[in-house]
Amino acid sequence: MIELDKISSPEDIKKIPTEELNALSAELRSVLTGKLAAHGGHCGPNLGVVEATVALHYVFDAPHDKLVFDVSHQTYVHKMLTGRIGAFLDPAHYNDVTGYTCPRESEYDLFEIGHTSTSIALAVGLAKSRDLNGGKENVVAFIGDASLGGGEALEALDFAPTLGSNFIVVLNDNQMSIAENHGALYSHLEELRKTNGTAANNIFKALGYQYIYVEEGNNVAALIKAFRAAKNSDHAVLVHINTMKGMGLPVAEADKESFHYSMPFDPKTGALLNPSPAESYTEIFTRHMLVKMSENPNVVTMTAGTPGAFGFTPERRKMAGKQFVDVGICEQEAVAVAAGLAKGGSRPVFGVMATFIQRAYDQLSQEIAINNLPAVIVDFAGSVWGMSDMTHLGFFDIPLVSNIPNFIFLAPANAEEYLAMLDWSISQTDHPVFLRTPGGKVMHTDRPVNTDFFRYDIIREGEDVAIIGAGAFLTIASEAADLLRERGLNPTVINPRNLSQLDKTVLDRLRDYKTVITLEDGIVDGGFGQKVAAYLGNSPVKVHVLGLKKEFLDRYKAAEVLKANGLTPEQVAALV
Amino acid sequence: MIELDKISSPEDIKKIPTEELNALSAELRSVLTGKLAAHGGHCGPNLGVVEATVALHYVFDAPHDKLVFDVSHQTYVHKMLTGRIGAFLDPAHYNDVTGYTCPRESEYDLFEIGHTSTSIALAVGLAKSRDLNGGKENVVAFIGDASLGGGEALEALDFAPTLGSNFIVVLNDNQMSIAENHGALYSHLEELRKTNGTAANNIFKALGYQYIYVEEGNNVAALIKAFRAAKNSDHAVLVHINTMKGMGLPVAEADKESFHYSMPFDPKTGALLNPSPAESYTEIFTRHMLVKMSENPNVVTMTAGTPGAFGFTPERRKMAGKQFVDVGICEQEAVAVAAGLAKGGSRPVFGVMATFIQRAYDQLSQEIAINNLPAVIVDFAGSVWGMSDMTHLGFFDIPLVSNIPNFIFLAPANAEEYLAMLDWSISQTDHPVFLRTPGGKVMHTDRPVNTDFFRYDIIREGEDVAIIGAGAFLTIASEAADLLRERGLNPTVINPRNLSQLDKTVLDRLRDYKTVITLEDGIVDGGFGQKVAAYLGNSPVKVHVLGLKKEFLDRYKAAEVLKANGLTPEQVAALV
Repeated sequence: MIELDKISSPEDIKKIPTEELNALSAELRSVLTGKLAAHGGHCGPNLGVVEATVALHYVFDAPHDKLVFDVSHQTYVHKMLTGRIGAFLDPAHYNDVTGYTCPRESEYDLFEIGHTSTSIALAVGLAKSRDLNGGKENVVAFIGDASLGGGEALEALDFAPTLGSNFIVVLNDNQMSIAENHGALYSHLEELRKTNGTAANNIFKALGYQYIYVEEGNNVAALIKAFRAAKNSDHAVLVHINTMKGMGLPVAEADKESFHYSMPFDPKTGALLNPSPAESYTEIFTRHMLVKMSENPNVVTMTAGTPGAFGFTPERRKMAGKQFVDVGICEQEAVAVAAGLAKGGSRPVFGVMATFIQRAYDQLSQEIAINNLPAVIVDFAGSVWGMSDMTHLGFFDIPLVSNIPNFIFLAPANAEEYLAMLDWSISQTDHPVFLRTPGGKVMHTDRPVNTDFFRYDIIREGEDVAIIGAGAFLTIASEAADLLRERGLNPTVINPRNLSQLDKTVLDRLRDYKTVITLEDGIVDGGFGQKVAAYLGNSPVKVHVLGLKKEFLDRYKAAEVLKANGLTPEQVAALV
Repeated sequence: MIELDKISSPEDIKKIPTEELNALSAELRSVLTGKLAAHGGHCGPNLGVVEATVALHYVFDAPHDKLVFDVSHQTYVHKMLTGRIGAFLDPAHYNDVTGYTCPRESEYDLFEIGHTSTSIALAVGLAKSRDLNGGKENVVAFIGDASLGGGEALEALDFAPTLGSNFIVVLNDNQMSIAENHGALYSHLEELRKTNGTAANNIFKALGYQYIYVEEGNNVAALIKAFRAAKNSDHAVLVHINTMKGMGLPVAEADKESFHYSMPFDPKTGALLNPSPAESYTEIFTRHMLVKMSENPNVVTMTAGTPGAFGFTPERRKMAGKQFVDVGICEQEAVAVAAGLAKGGSRPVFGVMATFIQRAYDQLSQEIAINNLPAVIVDFAGSVWGMSDMTHLGFFDIPLVSNIPNFIFLAPANAEEYLAMLDWSISQTDHPVFLRTPGGKVMHTDRPVNTDFFRYDIIREGEDVAIIGAGAFLTIASEAADLLRERGLNPTVINPRNLSQLDKTVLDRLRDYKTVITLEDGIVDGGFGQKVAAYLGNSPVKVHVLGLKKEFLDRYKAAEVLKANGLTPEQVAALV
C-alpha cells in the first residue's frame, strides 16, 4: 500500500492492485474526515465519492482525459489524488486549496465552478472541440442527482448524445440534494435503483444513452468495472452509481442535511466547535415568515434547493407544511412558479442566495416584471460579508436586479426596517419586490420606519456634505459623519432604502451641496451610486461613488476589501 | 355553422356539434391566412394549432380553467375565439391585438409571454395556488416540442407531477423548432410518433405522467377525445399531439423555417411583399463568419435555436458543416458549451438576440467570465431599432453584460468597426468578448479602425463640449455636433467603442470641459453613461446622461421613443 503523502499524481494509484483500493479509500476518507472536522467544508458530498474518485482516476487518464465535476464541491479527494494531498494531511496547508476545482491550482482542474448543473454542457463543449480537432480523449461529466434536475444540466443531457462521439456522464446518485430532493425524476431514479437498473421507461435510454447501473457505488471494484465499460466508447454512456452521502462518518450519515456543508465540528458528536451567534437576519426572516404563514394561508415561502441557507430546517419546513415549496435547484422554475402563484392570488416569498438569483434574470424580467406581478424575492448574502468563494460572490445583485423595470429593489439597513419592508412587500399587490437582506451583523434602530419605500430616509439633516449609505453601509456613512462632525462639519446622512427608484425630491435638495458621497455594499458598476451621480451630473455638487470594484475576488477578508475600496469611515471622511 | 364574426367567447363554439368543428377550423384558418399574408406574423405555429385551439376551448372552460401558452406566439386562433376575432376579420383592426397573450387585452390571457419554455412552471404556480385555495379548475400548459427542450421547461416538467393534483401538459409536437430541432429528445418523440405512443422508455411515463398520444393532431374530434380524457384528472397528464406546422398553407408547409415567422407575403408564391434591404449587419456578419470558418477549422459559429435571426440559412449551415452548432433553444447550455469549446482551444462565436441572452446571465458570469475564457458572444437586435414587442425588447443588454467582470463589451458604430472587432475578438485569447451588433441601418466609415479596443476613438477634437455617442448613437452625436458647429461651437465627438472599461485618459481630458453628453442605445440605468457621470462626478464638468428610460415598451416606433427620451440631434444640441 502506498503512503498517502507519496501520492503526487493519479499515476501513483494506477500501480496499486484493485483489491487494495477500498483500503486506500478508507485511508483517504480518514484523512478527509480529519480535515473536514477541523477546517469545515462540504462533508457529505466528498465522503460519499471517495471510492468513485479513486476509480475515476484509476480508469481514466487525466488530464488527457477530461473530467468535469458538477458544482465541484465534491472534488476534495480528486485534489488529494492530483498533487495536492499536502493540503489535506497538514493543517498548516489546509487553506492552500480552494473548495472547488481551480485551474490556477492544477491542470487536472478544468474550470472554476461552484454553481450547479453546468458540467454536462461544459463537457459537451470540450467534446465538440475534441471532435473538431480529431482528438481521442474521453470526456467525462460527473454530476449529482440533485444537480441533474437543473435546467442547464437537462438541456445538455438532451443534447450530448447528438454529438455521436465519446461522451460519458457519471450520475452520482446519493439520494439527496442539500436537503431532500424534489421532482419526479427522483421517483424515477428510485425505481431504477430498486430494479438494479432494469426499470421500464428508462429516461437515459430514451435519450439514447448506453446505461450502466452500479448498485455498489462505494465499492471501487464495481466502479472500475463500470468505468472501464464506458471508457473509449464512441457514443454517449451514462453510468448511474448509487452512493451514500456522508459515508463513513456516522454523524454525517445520520444527518445528511446538516453535514452537506459544515463549519468545524466534533467528529464524534457532530457539535459545531464555534456555534454561530444567536441573532442573525436569517433567523429573523424565518421566524417572521412562520408567523406570516400561520396568519395567512395564502403566503408561500419558496426555495430552490437551499432551505437551510435561510433557516428553514426540516422542523420548520414541516411547520410550514403546504405553504413551503422547494422546487429543487431550479431557480428559473422557482421564479416562474412565484409568478404563477402571484397571478393565482397567493403571496409568494422566494428566499434565495444572491449568487444564485443570477440564474434567473430572464424570469425576473419576463415572468415577473413585465407582468408586474407582486412576487417577493428575498435575497441573502448579497453583501461583501456574504460568501467569499469566487463562484459564490454576492455583490453583483444590485446591477443585476435594480435595472429591471417595475422591480422595487429594497435595501434595509437594520432589522426593524427589514421586517417592515417584508411586511409591506407581502401586503401590497402593486409591485414585484426584491428585498435584500443586509449583510454583516444585525443592526437595530429605534427610529420609526416610514413605510413609503419610494422615499429616502434622512437620518440626520445637515449641510454642504451628504453621505448616502445604502443597506448595511449606512453604518459606514454614520461613522464617517461622526468623524466629520469632530472636524466641525455637519453632514447630512441619508438611508436611501430603495435602490431602483431615485427619490428626486431629496436628491434635488443636494444640488447646491459641496459634496455628495454614495456608499453601497456591491460593485459600483451599474449600481445605485452611479444613478445618483448621473442624476446630479448637471449640478455643481461633487459626487463620489463608493462601493466595490468590479472584479472576481476569491476567499477574501471583508475588512481588507473594504479598505482596498476606500470604504472605511476614515477613508470616506477623508474624501471631504 | 356559426358566422365567425358572431364568435364573442368560447361559449359560442361549445354549442356547435363536434362534426362541424373541422369545418369551423378551416374557416378560421382561411381568415388567419388572410391576415398573416397581409400583415405578417407567426405563420407556421398558428396554422398548425387551429384544430388544437378549437378543441381546447371546446373542452375546457376558460377563463375558469387556466390555459397557459408557451411563448404564446401560437395564440392567434385563441384570440379569435376569445372576443378578438375583429382583429383578424377587419384589416383596419389588425393591430388591435399583440402577437402574444396579453392580459391587458383579455381575461383569457394570463401572462405577457414571449420567451420559450415558461408555460409549465407558470402553470405549476397557478396549480399550487389553486390547491392552496381549494379550487377545482383545470390548469393546462400548452407547449411546443422545441420549447420543451429548454431548461426551464424541463425543470417544471420534472416538478409538476409532484404536486399530486390536476395538471395537464399539451405537447404540441410539430417536429420543428424555428429551424430543425436539435437534441436526443426529438429522436425519442419520433419513436413515440412511429409507435403511436407505445414506445418503450417513455420519458413522460418515467416522470409519472399519464400519457395520451394523439396521432391526428389536426383533427378536432381526436383532440376533443384526448382533452376530455385529461380534463378534471387528479394527477399530471401529458397529451402528446402530432400536428403539422404551417398546415393548410402550401408555401408554409413546404418551407417551414421561412414561414415560422414572416413579414407580409404573397400567399400563392410565398414571396415577400417588401423584401428587406440588401445590406444588413446580419448579412455582413454571416458572410464574414463563413470566410472565417473556411480559413480556420477551429472557429465555430453557434446558435440557440435562432440561426435565421442572423442569416444562417439552411444552405449556409450546410456550408459551415461541423463548425456550426445549434443546441436548440437552450441559451444556458449554449453559453456553457461556448466556454467548453474555448477551454478546448476552439474559437466559439455564439450569435444571439439581445432579448434571449438575458436567459444566460449566470453562464456568462460563471462559466465564461470567472474562467476568463475567450468566448465571443455576438449580440443582435440590441438596440432601440430592434424588436419592439414588450417581451422581445433589446435595450437591456448593456447593464446586463457590461457590469460582469472580465467581459469586454464592444459597441461598434459602423460596419468597418464591427468587422474589425469581430476579427479581433476571434483572434485574441485573453478576454471574453460581448460584441453588440449595431442597430438601425448599416453605417460606413473610411476612418482606419484602431484595434486597441480599450481606447476610445476621438472622432473630432474640439473644446468645451464633448458628445460621447456609443454604438449606433454615434450618428446622433455627430449630427448634434454639426448643429452646435452651426452655432459657432466646436464640440469634441467621441466613439467609446468599449462600454465595459472606461478610457480614463480620454475622460480625464474632459474634466475641465463645460459639458459632457453621453448617448447610448439602451436604458440609462446601469449603463455606460452613468459610469462616465460617476467617474467625472468629482469634476466641475456638467454631465448629461442620455439613453432610454427604464421601462417595458410595447410595439413602439423608434423615432417616437428617441424623441420622448430627448435623443434627436436637435434635442441633444439644445442641452448645451
